[in-house]
Amino acid sequence: MALPKGYSVGSVSAGFRKPARDDVAVLVSELPCVVAGVFTTNAFKAAPVLECQRILGSGASAVQAVLVNSGQANACTGDEGLENCISTTKMMADVLGLGQDSVLPMSTGVIGAQFRMDLWEEAVPKLKDKLGSGDEESFTRAMMTTDAFPKFFSREVEFSGGLVRFAGMAKGAGMICPNMATMLALVVCDAAVEREVWQKLFVQAVDNTFNRVTVDGDTSTNDTVLGLANGASGVSFISSDIEKLKDVLEEMLGALAYMLVQDGEGSTKVIKIEITGAKDDADAEKVARTVGHSQLVKTAMYGRDANWGRIVAAVGRSGADFLAQDVRVFLCGIELFCNGQPVDGDHDAALEGPLKERDIHVLIELGAGDGKYTLLASDLSHDYVSCNADYRT
Amino acid sequence: MALPKGYSVGSVSAGFRKPARDDVAVLVSELPCVVAGVFTTNAFKAAPVLECQRILGSGASAVQAVLVNSGQANACTGDEGLENCISTTKMMADVLGLGQDSVLPMSTGVIGAQFRMDLWEEAVPKLKDKLGSGDEESFTRAMMTTDAFPKFFSREVEFSGGLVRFAGMAKGAGMICPNMATMLALVVCDAAVEREVWQKLFVQAVDNTFNRVTVDGDTSTNDTVLGLANGASGVSFISSDIEKLKDVLEEMLGALAYMLVQDGEGSTKVIKIEITGAKDDADAEKVARTVGHSQLVKTAMYGRDANWGRIVAAVGRSGADFLAQDVRVFLCGIELFCNGQPVDGDHDAALEGPLKERDIHVLIELGAGDGKYTLLASDLSHDYVSCNADYRT
Repeated sequence: MALPKGYSVGSVSAGFRKPARDDVAVLVSELPCVVAGVFTTNAFKAAPVLECQRILGSGASAVQAVLVNSGQANACTGDEGLENCISTTKMMADVLGLGQDSVLPMSTGVIGAQFRMDLWEEAVPKLKDKLGSGDEESFTRAMMTTDAFPKFFSREVEFSGGLVRFAGMAKGAGMICPNMATMLALVVCDAAVEREVWQKLFVQAVDNTFNRVTVDGDTSTNDTVLGLANGASGVSFISSDIEKLKDVLEEMLGALAYMLVQDGEGSTKVIKIEITGAKDDADAEKVARTVGHSQLVKTAMYGRDANWGRIVAAVGRSGADFLAQDVRVFLCGIELFCNGQPVDGDHDAALEGPLKERDIHVLIELGAGDGKYTLLASDLSHDYVSCNADYRT
Repeated sequence: MALPKGYSVGSVSAGFRKPARDDVAVLVSELPCVVAGVFTTNAFKAAPVLECQRILGSGASAVQAVLVNSGQANACTGDEGLENCISTTKMMADVLGLGQDSVLPMSTGVIGAQFRMDLWEEAVPKLKDKLGSGDEESFTRAMMTTDAFPKFFSREVEFSGGLVRFAGMAKGAGMICPNMATMLALVVCDAAVEREVWQKLFVQAVDNTFNRVTVDGDTSTNDTVLGLANGASGVSFISSDIEKLKDVLEEMLGALAYMLVQDGEGSTKVIKIEITGAKDDADAEKVARTVGHSQLVKTAMYGRDANWGRIVAAVGRSGADFLAQDVRVFLCGIELFCNGQPVDGDHDAALEGPLKERDIHVLIELGAGDGKYTLLASDLSHDYVSCNADYRT
């Protein structure tokens, strides 16, 4: 599928990663874009995050490009790191003939190393020459680190003004693996939209998708989601389109978020942890995150072990408000725990097949109210440990 | 070393664990004891925890024995589990010729299975016959599950009234591995003490020791620390002894807590995470726990990788109050991060030796106040995953 109208992509190998492969890419819009941005809450924000936030804070009226690199996160690099970040976007703007604050940066890779500016100086002019030769996949490949596969998703949707094209591109193998820094996503569309509406839809969609997946519970210094709308299709979203647009964005970001968990480091499972009947949604989230981050639950799922005691113990230490005897636990549709005790039956035999599948459903009913929350989590495998114990060495 | 005066121990194999080995033990005091107890905060409290809490709540004036078993946690077992628990302590009291509420139960093992009462009925009379043949080590061995070694510690200390003997016995391989349920500790001494003082000292000592270690962040359904003082030495603690007694209890529980981390499932490291300069102690604890529970930090330490970026990223997402540029990070005495950027130097070479040691020191100075907190954490290894993915199967 072609990119949405008015966008072009190019990528090259700058040499940040060995063995050599494309590790820097640019996406350029022929028209200035309306931009939405959602960023990491980590107190140590990487230079590209600070620079994106500055540009968005000053109105972001001139944005026409996104420059992404892998191999170097430019995080925890101080003033020098920020100056380097600004130099790279300025280089890119200059060769493209664009003005100030026209290029948004995204970086992923090892924390703490300063940019190799000599490599950037060689790469940027080549990037311009390659412009138009790439697509969603090549852009995504250039930002992969420990990712096993490129994550992108395209859609064409009919709105009241006509056909609109969307493309979504993401990286991340592990919701967060901070030294791989980390989760980056870019959604582009060729319709025109009001900036406030666009930003609000992205905040909502990220909260309902990316913020509800976890690999290792770590929040990176570089997490960035950007949304660009350039209006090149001639279609403008009108107020009656908003519900549909909301659905499209949630579907796209949801599909990318699922891929992140599926590609979690060493992951063999996508565990859907669904909490219902909590006192409120915040309590439900508390339970979902405690279960989803439990090393014991994650290793049990990796071991295909119907070890519901670990799930119950995690619920019990979550701090949520409920009565122990009201809690019910279901694994892959089979009820295992009710009235404070095990449900009778040969559950190990019944669950042997379902626990071999990639998708595992954990349902926990707390019986304390109407609150609910769903989280997607990866399991914890030998390969996760190998990936993370041996990454730098 | 002999047990403190007036205590005797016996253990047998009831058949809860395969291959057969001692899995039930009793410690009996010839005199009624003053009892302190500290229990899990998990909402799903195991039957033995509920029963201990009931006895302590009603004054615990008749306690003369502790009955411990491994292999079955009697957790998440409902009313039937509680009745079984009470039956076992009543059986034990009857064969010992003791009255109501004289026996405190502790259980560890798989969650959710009901007690094999037939095995208990055979084992309890045999336990009485064995009384006097055991010691701290045999008592500790009977409560081991995935523990690699028995954890016990004895001391003789001169107080103002004379010599007092202490013995501490603990199990747990993993601060908490809920389905192994879990961390049990028993400290006995042969002096007399006021109940309120004894309980207060235990709460403090547990807070400063067991509550400051973590293997996997999971809090079990069965965690129990009991303290017994029987006065058999003829020595009574007086108010001028209290500071010394506090130090002895912290030393003993501290030594047992260190052993728990050392014996954490698959553990190859004891990581001391020291936070200073936090806004307050609560903020320091927040940072210590975020770093100590980070899978990425734990796998890096296992991999002997001086990957300080993961430590900084964990500090950044902890939610504590500080300015990013004020944070300093030291690993094994070497400063790696300061002023928001890496400290120059070939740290990988300098840290190669220190990172091979078992004991690793992480020091994080936040520069935001006088708050401090220290946590002992294990690393995350391939063996941890093997132990927990393959435990039941």
